Amino acid sequence: MAKKVVTFGEVMLRLAPEGYTRFVQADTFGATYGGGEANVAVSLANYGLDASFVTKLPKHEIGQAAVNSLRKFGVNTSHITRGGEKVGIYFLEKGASQRPSKVIYDRAGSAIATAKSEDFNWDEIFQDVDWFHFTGITPALGDDVADICIEACKKAKEKNITISCDLNYRNKLWSKEKASKVMGEICKYVDVCIANEEDASDVFGIKAKDTDVTTGEVNHEGYKEVAKELMNRFSFTHVAITLRESISANDNNWSAMLYDGNDYFFSKKYAMRIVDRVGGGDSFGGGLITAILDEKSPQDVIEFAVAASCLKHSIEGDYNMVSKDEVLKLAGGDGSGRVQR
Amino acid sequence: MAKKVVTFGEVMLRLAPEGYTRFVQADTFGATYGGGEANVAVSLANYGLDASFVTKLPKHEIGQAAVNSLRKFGVNTSHITRGGEKVGIYFLEKGASQRPSKVIYDRAGSAIATAKSEDFNWDEIFQDVDWFHFTGITPALGDDVADICIEACKKAKEKNITISCDLNYRNKLWSKEKASKVMGEICKYVDVCIANEEDASDVFGIKAKDTDVTTGEVNHEGYKEVAKELMNRFSFTHVAITLRESISANDNNWSAMLYDGNDYFFSKKYAMRIVDRVGGGDSFGGGLITAILDEKSPQDVIEFAVAASCLKHSIEGDYNMVSKDEVLKLAGGDGSGRVQR
Amino acid sequence: MAKKVVTFGEVMLRLAPEGYTRFVQADTFGATYGGGEANVAVSLANYGLDASFVTKLPKHEIGQAAVNSLRKFGVNTSHITRGGEKVGIYFLEKGASQRPSKVIYDRAGSAIATAKSEDFNWDEIFQDVDWFHFTGITPALGDDVADICIEACKKAKEKNITISCDLNYRNKLWSKEKASKVMGEICKYVDVCIANEEDASDVFGIKAKDTDVTTGEVNHEGYKEVAKELMNRFSFTHVAITLRESISANDNNWSAMLYDGNDYFFSKKYAMRIVDRVGGGDSFGGGLITAILDEKSPQDVIEFAVAASCLKHSIEGDYNMVSKDEVLKLAGGDGSGRVQR
Amino acid sequence: MAKKVVTFGEVMLRLAPEGYTRFVQADTFGATYGGGEANVAVSLANYGLDASFVTKLPKHEIGQAAVNSLRKFGVNTSHITRGGEKVGIYFLEKGASQRPSKVIYDRAGSAIATAKSEDFNWDEIFQDVDWFHFTGITPALGDDVADICIEACKKAKEKNITISCDLNYRNKLWSKEKASKVMGEICKYVDVCIANEEDASDVFGIKAKDTDVTTGEVNHEGYKEVAKELMNRFSFTHVAITLRESISANDNNWSAMLYDGNDYFFSKKYAMRIVDRVGGGDSFGGGLITAILDEKSPQDVIEFAVAASCLKHSIEGDYNMVSKDEVLKLAGGDGSGRVQR
Amino acid sequence: MAKKVVTFGEVMLRLAPEGYTRFVQADTFGATYGGGEANVAVSLANYGLDASFVTKLPKHEIGQAAVNSLRKFGVNTSHITRGGEKVGIYFLEKGASQRPSKVIYDRAGSAIATAKSEDFNWDEIFQDVDWFHFTGITPALGDDVADICIEACKKAKEKNITISCDLNYRNKLWSKEKASKVMGEICKYVDVCIANEEDASDVFGIKAKDTDVTTGEVNHEGYKEVAKELMNRFSFTHVAITLRESISANDNNWSAMLYDGNDYFFSKKYAMRIVDRVGGGDSFGGGLITAILDEKSPQDVIEFAVAASCLKHSIEGDYNMVSKDEVLKLAGGDGSGRVQR
Amino acid sequence: MAKKVVTFGEVMLRLAPEGYTRFVQADTFGATYGGGEANVAVSLANYGLDASFVTKLPKHEIGQAAVNSLRKFGVNTSHITRGGEKVGIYFLEKGASQRPSKVIYDRAGSAIATAKSEDFNWDEIFQDVDWFHFTGITPALGDDVADICIEACKKAKEKNITISCDLNYRNKLWSKEKASKVMGEICKYVDVCIANEEDASDVFGIKAKDTDVTTGEVNHEGYKEVAKELMNRFSFTHVAITLRESISANDNNWSAMLYDGNDYFFSKKYAMRIVDRVGGGDSFGGGLITAILDEKSPQDVIEFAVAASCLKHSIEGDYNMVSKDEVLKLAGGDGSGRVQR
Repeated sequence: MAKKVVTFGEVMLRLAPEGYTRFVQADTFGATYGGGEANVAVSLANYGLDASFVTKLPKHEIGQAAVNSLRKFGVNTSHITRGGEKVGIYFLEKGASQRPSKVIYDRAGSAIATAKSEDFNWDEIFQDVDWFHFTGITPALGDDVADICIEACKKAKEKNITISCDLNYRNKLWSKEKASKVMGEICKYVDVCIANEEDASDVFGIKAKDTDVTTGEVNHEGYKEVAKELMNRFSFTHVAITLRESISANDNNWSAMLYDGNDYFFSKKYAMRIVDRVGGGDSFGGGLITAILDEKSPQDVIEFAVAASCLKHSIEGDYNMVSKDEVLKLAGGDGSGRVQR
Repeated sequence: MAKKVVTFGEVMLRLAPEGYTRFVQADTFGATYGGGEANVAVSLANYGLDASFVTKLPKHEIGQAAVNSLRKFGVNTSHITRGGEKVGIYFLEKGASQRPSKVIYDRAGSAIATAKSEDFNWDEIFQDVDWFHFTGITPALGDDVADICIEACKKAKEKNITISCDLNYRNKLWSKEKASKVMGEICKYVDVCIANEEDASDVFGIKAKDTDVTTGEVNHEGYKEVAKELMNRFSFTHVAITLRESISANDNNWSAMLYDGNDYFFSKKYAMRIVDRVGGGDSFGGGLITAILDEKSPQDVIEFAVAASCLKHSIEGDYNMVSKDEVLKLAGGDGSGRVQR
Repeated sequence: MAKKVVTFGEVMLRLAPEGYTRFVQADTFGATYGGGEANVAVSLANYGLDASFVTKLPKHEIGQAAVNSLRKFGVNTSHITRGGEKVGIYFLEKGASQRPSKVIYDRAGSAIATAKSEDFNWDEIFQDVDWFHFTGITPALGDDVADICIEACKKAKEKNITISCDLNYRNKLWSKEKASKVMGEICKYVDVCIANEEDASDVFGIKAKDTDVTTGEVNHEGYKEVAKELMNRFSFTHVAITLRESISANDNNWSAMLYDGNDYFFSKKYAMRIVDRVGGGDSFGGGLITAILDEKSPQDVIEFAVAASCLKHSIEGDYNMVSKDEVLKLAGGDGSGRVQR
Repeated sequence: MAKKVVTFGEVMLRLAPEGYTRFVQADTFGATYGGGEANVAVSLANYGLDASFVTKLPKHEIGQAAVNSLRKFGVNTSHITRGGEKVGIYFLEKGASQRPSKVIYDRAGSAIATAKSEDFNWDEIFQDVDWFHFTGITPALGDDVADICIEACKKAKEKNITISCDLNYRNKLWSKEKASKVMGEICKYVDVCIANEEDASDVFGIKAKDTDVTTGEVNHEGYKEVAKELMNRFSFTHVAITLRESISANDNNWSAMLYDGNDYFFSKKYAMRIVDRVGGGDSFGGGLITAILDEKSPQDVIEFAVAASCLKHSIEGDYNMVSKDEVLKLAGGDGSGRVQR
Repeated sequence: MAKKVVTFGEVMLRLAPEGYTRFVQADTFGATYGGGEANVAVSLANYGLDASFVTKLPKHEIGQAAVNSLRKFGVNTSHITRGGEKVGIYFLEKGASQRPSKVIYDRAGSAIATAKSEDFNWDEIFQDVDWFHFTGITPALGDDVADICIEACKKAKEKNITISCDLNYRNKLWSKEKASKVMGEICKYVDVCIANEEDASDVFGIKAKDTDVTTGEVNHEGYKEVAKELMNRFSFTHVAITLRESISANDNNWSAMLYDGNDYFFSKKYAMRIVDRVGGGDSFGGGLITAILDEKSPQDVIEFAVAASCLKHSIEGDYNMVSKDEVLKLAGGDGSGRVQR
Repeated sequence: MAKKVVTFGEVMLRLAPEGYTRFVQADTFGATYGGGEANVAVSLANYGLDASFVTKLPKHEIGQAAVNSLRKFGVNTSHITRGGEKVGIYFLEKGASQRPSKVIYDRAGSAIATAKSEDFNWDEIFQDVDWFHFTGITPALGDDVADICIEACKKAKEKNITISCDLNYRNKLWSKEKASKVMGEICKYVDVCIANEEDASDVFGIKAKDTDVTTGEVNHEGYKEVAKELMNRFSFTHVAITLRESISANDNNWSAMLYDGNDYFFSKKYAMRIVDRVGGGDSFGGGLITAILDEKSPQDVIEFAVAASCLKHSIEGDYNMVSKDEVLKLAGGDGSGRVQR
């Protein structure tokens, strides 16, 4: 019987010019769907878990297309509330070489951002559920959504559901101060905390020493301190931090660290040629949840999560479309990219 | 020296699945730009007039792309105010045969809809201008925009600028009651009134007898009455009404009538195979303004306007990309579609 | 509570050159999925029924993509057996004007054609099911599949499930003699028989007089006789016959007749500009089942089924992607194709 | 043993915006190859004849691509001289409804237009050849090419090879006076003369009475006179005239007449929905040559040629990609466009 | 007079999602054609040899398109037997970074796999031929094809034709045991043996020591032993081994070794950014045959073959579309990729 | 008030197969516009300068599309003379790895190449202008254009306008001898001389020692000598030399040097993954002019110019579509390519 996981957040229409075309050149946009928690749900469904994604989406065809994008991969969409007027949008211009990728958001007023508490029946949603996941983007959508988030956390705690949260700071959505306050409240309920090399600093002011994200150098000792400090402030069982070294928009090194309160587990490091970097962190979260639910050892957990997200960087779109076998094969050591016939 | 025309309104990003693809099938959207008054500005620039389009657009690249789409055709964009966060969007699914085209709007909160009076200096904008054009969509965007519209009309009147307005009722933007009130006020300043077979009824409750828009039958006498009644209520110099007979999403008949207070001038009727129907009315407006500024006879005015908009139906996108020569050739009688080598 | 319907058959990968490109010109193929019974399942899911599609598909990614194509529209795929090596393929070249569409099949040896009785547990599949549908293509795939079909019919009868069958004769799969024998056996279990203007003749040698399918003329009286004769031979409760008049590859007239043993109900006739003709008959079946389950009057049943399939002809791909509202709107009389904003 | 036919002329790179996109909208061009005599060669090869196309093309990759486009369909390209700098180009914008198709030529200075007599060894080229075909475009490319054309005609006559010429007047290439003079000389060698409804008038001043090409009305009696007058002036064995009625850029009626010096044979008339009109006349020529070489009756010849070219109008690109079976099927009466499975 | 080479095997329809799109994301497939021996034939034709490809293909349009894909590049297709029902298919998903490329075959029952001895007249096919080439895939297609292969080898030997074979082991087609037995028989006739770093091991159990194909390290001494051992077992005149170091799906190092029974010749090594890796080995074979027929020195032979196949990795599709000049330029040392104007 | 710059030269239609497709594979060409001086004008307009591009273009739609491509980015096109028949064309095949990019020109006889002195009124064009820029391509188009160029230089000198020239030698257009003679005359008027690592050698026989452009090694001392020698021969105020190290068609290192008669300023060196290399030098020129007009320090000038052109290599098409902010950000040190949200 597959484990049940619920994720909660926004799924957006992603509009991206083809290839390396710039916004001002584009006369078509690739249209896919994505968002932190939806991306995690797709990963989980692909690994065989019973994943349900909760959000609010308009009844019109763009809302329906968002629902369909999730159903296609086997995500349970029966707890999506239909209503509101707008599907959140983000425009994505893919960077190359020294030119960075650019994201322009058009998400104000989306159905989920304007949702109300009564739109969700958490008692029903959480029936027989093992894990609840969301990211720091969800409470950042607005005060009502933040309240719904806390409400859901409380209900999950009642039902003994493991809660994970990816800090995922977005400065376009809220200030660091606001984030610090709200996330501080929310993190009280969280068991598994996921962060990238900047989030802990942006949200809680916890910084890794001697690390400069624009040069791509990372300092292992610094991240150990960050994880320890996060664990100190909250009662997390696990802290997982992804470590990205940005050489250019095309080339990144990718690894991660897991801290379980006792030891620090560093994964292998992958030198990646990037196809699509968006959703990289989410695919890490999806791998992490899966590996923990599979009761792997801490080292295997972090290797699975990093291999999963390494593969994501080779895939177009937010969703990570890889199978558990593919992740295990890479985590097991074959990154040679030889043709499989 | 080319005549100067100013148009004022919203230009939106238009996102349309390719060909006859439905929204739920689309994984690319064609991205073009359009909107009632922007469409008219492009028509005018293509006919050699000095056309300026006034709006507000964000500074980001999607806003810039909208500006570029207009500059490309020679429209003066120097009076576009830059600011705000959002470019209005409309999603367009092209219909076929018995299946109608569908439009989903995502325009709430756009830069122009949230513009303020101080964003526009009409004294400067209207320098040496001959004609001012807008549609009923602009005041429908919000109370502030309606006020700006009236302000612009007053300034135009002061400067002896001819004012044209296409009633263009949009039920998603406002109620008939609200439209009636605001448009009633605005129409006091208008010289040339443009309407389609439904607008006069929707906005002012003036109905053409014995015409059923869903069957595509039109009744000439009824439209004469409508035009006369419009002229009675306001001090228009011209009333122009487009007459569309919808046989299916692919086949429409298209003609129009001009009333100059004395006589009714009916155009030829074209049996059209439709490539893209959106912007059909705007291309009529662009042709009408051009032909009046060219001081053509009333019959020639309506023939030019109808030929221009007939050609628009054969062109993808909102903008009518035809030259004055092409319009004159069709108005002059060659609709055989023979190859021109 | 939505009614439950099971359909059983083959879903194929459809490979079609873009637009009107011929096979010898194609260097891309549009890749969608379809097949008589899968198409019906998608229709039903779109109308809000609980539709389950039963087949066998390989475990590899092409098999998975076929599953995903169905999940996307909400079809229950949990009863699809995974195994075998090959997904059936059909190549489709779209015709235009006097040039007919062409289909090349590559379906021999597909997973479902080589399936065995033990691949399906009908007791489980038919739990709480209201309706079972398949077409004459399924038993034509091979003797084993024909046996499975009969086994399923028997089980359905036991469980008091309504059975519908679309005769759907395919001369590439079996001879008329073989078809007549097998279908004669199967039709003993069938309640609702669907046929087009040629099937009854090809399978059972029952011909409509004075009708020439290549000229597009149909003769109502002849079809009444065909329906009556079918009803005489088998204990059908309903016989539904679609009537296609082929003017050219672009233009067809489309209507249908329903015979309920008492009366003959003819639908309106639609003059269609065709976008994609494949799946037209299946969309009729989907509409018919839905309307009967909705307990509409016979006239409303046939109008719903014909309107549904008329809309299908305006949609690319095998699957009919229309909502119940859209069908009702057309059946209710608005075929003008006017833009819906 | 297949009959051998040689055609001689220019093959150009055709650059056409996709679908109904206008030139000013295009950011891609479909790239195919075509030209009057190359088009005929492809038709002939498709019908199983041993067709050789003679021209001059640069050695560079664009020249090579032109060669490859012909080899792909089995045309013998071994007599193509390689040299020169430029492949002729034509830009094609496809018209729709009342908007005509437009052609912009960029062919001055092409390899064939600047070819010299020594580039071709007609003795070798014409070895065992049955038929030689060219159009009025070839001599119009320049005085040298006109001389080469006459030289080839003389050599063909010596070898008892049947010569056909499609008058094909192009006003961008030469004046009517020049055309009249050169074609008058060339036609002395021609056996089979092909013309459309305007060519005889443009080149030789022979007009069909009461026919207006822009309204699409044709007058059978007038064309009989034209054919007779052509036969009077030259020693043609056959005169074939295509009759196009242009209703719009999308809809044309198409038929033809053959005069063998004794009788006038009119073909069926096809009401065509046009996919691509360019090469329509050439596909008629290809059909005509094939049918005459097949020694069909005059009525069958003209039916074959018209059916062949009717099908061409449903095919993208200059080349007519249909088989002899397909032509015979249409000529035999099935134009219903029903799916062929 | 160009040397004549015959190759014999299967040409398949290759269906590949665009760019780095995964199978489950694809809604179009690029459609090209390829297969070991067809790829070699195209290489040879591009280098100016008289190359003939022998296979069996269905008469339908997909079969025709396969023929056309070869004719386009000047390959002689007159010895292709037409018949059978199915064109073999392979689906190709292009890998990126750590994600490997994937191939799914659908080739069982193809026309060539079901061909019989009487389908080929080797006496006629081998008239005036200098070289005969095939790969280990051909006999793996089935017992009948293996017999045909041996029959062809015998006939070639009789006629003193040089025979080359690329071992090309495919584990989806046969077991190592079967391969060993059949290839052992066939290799008795072979003069030039081509293998990659795994084939000798898979087919004959001959392994290079200290080489791990998944890490990309190669050991020159080991490959010398392999070549020597192959030469010992059979009476080859040449053994050529390609050496691929897979760093990732995007980056490979590429070199090769030639053994002529006396000396070992190692080529330069190229660090390649891969565009399309499929057909890499075949392009090596095409280069090798050409260089040997050109009577180059052993070192020049291996440099030509490796440069040719290095360039192939930069080209989309199975076929290597490069000229002899381009290969010579790279073999001569210019791999800087500077623009050639 | 923005500074005014005029550039003068040819803008061509660029036809490029998609991605890494070779010419012989292409059945679509991406259609953009570009040319040395047009590219500079677009850069300048994007940086906020008042840039005007002067050329001659036909009146037809391809000429119009070239005009529109410039207007779109805000380039002043009012001094473009309309006339002539042909828009120059260049075909571009993008290289990959060891395979170089290829350019095939079809520009003979273009409107600008056949322009006459009276087509341009330099007095009017140069009104209130600050800077005049052209490249060595313009005088190479023909003797008349060379004369026009000299005439413009004289007029610019009269008006105290700064003149810059990019030597840009094209061996397809003229011999080194001719170039040397004409450029020697023109350079008398030039203030700012731009060259790449080969131009000084090709045009004036001035060589950098110990530098081999095909291996990608550059020698700083050698380039200092080149710059000094150029300065010695002419009265330049600045000499700027771009330094490209070609590792492969995908990977280049890019830097530059500025010599102001006193000191040599070397920029940072960027390791670039190339998206599109064409226009790289022009984007350097655009950056250089902007930075000098902005009165930056010599080191900042060369850093700005190199950062600008580094970004160009990540952008499809000739035109460099980056903002001043983007250039400053990279010049300031952030080349990590991290996503900007």
